Amino acid sequence: MGVVVSLGDGKRGQASIAPLVELTRADMGRVNELILSKAGSDVEMIPEVANHLISSGGKRLRPMLTIAAAQIFGYRGDLHVKLAASVEFMHTATLLHDDVVDESDLRRGKRTARMIWGNQASVLVGDFLLGQAFRMMVEVGSLEALDILSAAATVIAEGEVMQLDVAKNLETTEDEYLQVIRAKTAALFSAACEVGPVIASDNRSDRAALRSYGTNLGLAFQLVDDALDYGGKAETLGKNVGDDFREGKVTLPVILSYRRGSDEDRAFWKRAIEGGENGDAELQHALGLITRTGAIGDTVARARHFGGIARDALAPMPKSRHKTALLEVIDFCIDRVN
Amino acid sequence: MGVVVSLGDGKRGQASIAPLVELTRADMGRVNELILSKAGSDVEMIPEVANHLISSGGKRLRPMLTIAAAQIFGYRGDLHVKLAASVEFMHTATLLHDDVVDESDLRRGKRTARMIWGNQASVLVGDFLLGQAFRMMVEVGSLEALDILSAAATVIAEGEVMQLDVAKNLETTEDEYLQVIRAKTAALFSAACEVGPVIASDNRSDRAALRSYGTNLGLAFQLVDDALDYGGKAETLGKNVGDDFREGKVTLPVILSYRRGSDEDRAFWKRAIEGGENGDAELQHALGLITRTGAIGDTVARARHFGGIARDALAPMPKSRHKTALLEVIDFCIDRVN
Repeated sequence: MGVVVSLGDGKRGQASIAPLVELTRADMGRVNELILSKAGSDVEMIPEVANHLISSGGKRLRPMLTIAAAQIFGYRGDLHVKLAASVEFMHTATLLHDDVVDESDLRRGKRTARMIWGNQASVLVGDFLLGQAFRMMVEVGSLEALDILSAAATVIAEGEVMQLDVAKNLETTEDEYLQVIRAKTAALFSAACEVGPVIASDNRSDRAALRSYGTNLGLAFQLVDDALDYGGKAETLGKNVGDDFREGKVTLPVILSYRRGSDEDRAFWKRAIEGGENGDAELQHALGLITRTGAIGDTVARARHFGGIARDALAPMPKSRHKTALLEVIDFCIDRVN
Repeated sequence: MGVVVSLGDGKRGQASIAPLVELTRADMGRVNELILSKAGSDVEMIPEVANHLISSGGKRLRPMLTIAAAQIFGYRGDLHVKLAASVEFMHTATLLHDDVVDESDLRRGKRTARMIWGNQASVLVGDFLLGQAFRMMVEVGSLEALDILSAAATVIAEGEVMQLDVAKNLETTEDEYLQVIRAKTAALFSAACEVGPVIASDNRSDRAALRSYGTNLGLAFQLVDDALDYGGKAETLGKNVGDDFREGKVTLPVILSYRRGSDEDRAFWKRAIEGGENGDAELQHALGLITRTGAIGDTVARARHFGGIARDALAPMPKSRHKTALLEVIDFCIDRVN
């Protein structure tokens, strides 16, 4: 447990989401109020379950991106608040269902809703939040935003199903894995960013720029998450090192380490991932193989690649505090491994 | 098993949905094509799981109602086809999640998807279908229809959560139970009917009429379903007699029988429903109590009450083949117990 692997180039100062938090603070206050109000229901168990996750200290990165992606074009209305809350509800619904699918017992350092209220409540409250997300989008009244977010909902579910196939399959290629995370993670980042210009700008290239920024930021974010699972600290990560390993999840560090390993190494991975023999001793051995094959460093290098694309997506935009903050988010996502 | 209880007044000839099927046949052909196409995905498991349920011989009553509720106002476009497919996808998604929540192993006489592909796939393919439902609604482009259907999605989930509370609670009142089925069943019937006039009529009273018809038809439908669980034939019902009982579900026949029973009877119900001791001997005893207390007959009487309201909702509409067919659906839903 708690193996810390330092992987950054150490040249930059630690990047932060503080500038994004600062710029979106006022609007996020309204987003948070809306979230609490829309998680309400006369059916007592619904706000209980929903608030357990909602108040569990997530960064609310996705709704902040929606707010910033509207503000950057000088948006003055209040539709972005509803869209941001919708995005967070879609995310929360996905987490509730994910925990059921993955049989997880810990999320952000707290017991998962399914451990407290059961799988039934997690499935149904997820459905409720998804319904509320759509209702808020409908209130916004933009068919374009509805199109983007409902398409994302479908793609996310497709990604999760793809992941079921990939989960225990060590022959998964890096390309196949990227397809999975493009769907299950990057699609929502992409939609969260794109709906900003949809309500705030008439310029179609602004939409394309924010969509590309979101997609690539999402890919980088997920890859770093995967790396952290083999080298982060539980207290910063909010999950235990080796959770993915114990669940037999095939992620990029495993894919790289498996492909680069000896026959003996591959036999180990098959026993551990496919056979489910993955206790603490196996985790230590896996961490050794992953370190030796440079799999974490290269997973982060892949993340930097996508981070670079996200950066260039915003490059043509005029200099602004919002642009600077969004660029720093890229570095923040990647620097988390340090 | 196979206890058949005859409860109708026997005065009418057996009502049928044949006239509704006939009037909607051509459009339902297009709905079915759309359903198959939108259940498609490059992710192989999705169409497999979706089609298992989609092709399992459901009556497609809800989408037929949507088609008829547009046709009755002389609708000539093709948006009703997309709305009908959306409604069926919402229903299918609910069934997939329900079977996980209820841990059911049989649905419409076939093994449930979760028994074949697991809970994970059922949760995620349900999410996928819900996403596709919203995408089709967005294509229709009516914010009013989107509002109605997304509100229904939320209400259905609320109803399912309420049902978790009610499930093993024999002190549930009839009113509380009605609130549950109003949410979990009637809301989708109501929305399915209301979106017809939303795209096909400018008259707000048409919307109100179809909404009221749908709500009350849905209530009658669910109550008769509950009655059938204690006195239908497995081959017509597509589920086994006593499924609700074995799962410890509190439905109206149980609520009535419990309230009307002796102390000894109530003790039996508590052991069976709350304690989970509900085998075949207990089922026979339960059927005896339910018959003796007149609980099935009165459950069906309640269904007739709502059927009457549904009938009056359409009363002011001019005579037409569609009106006649929709009225006959009410009788069909209720006559199923004969």
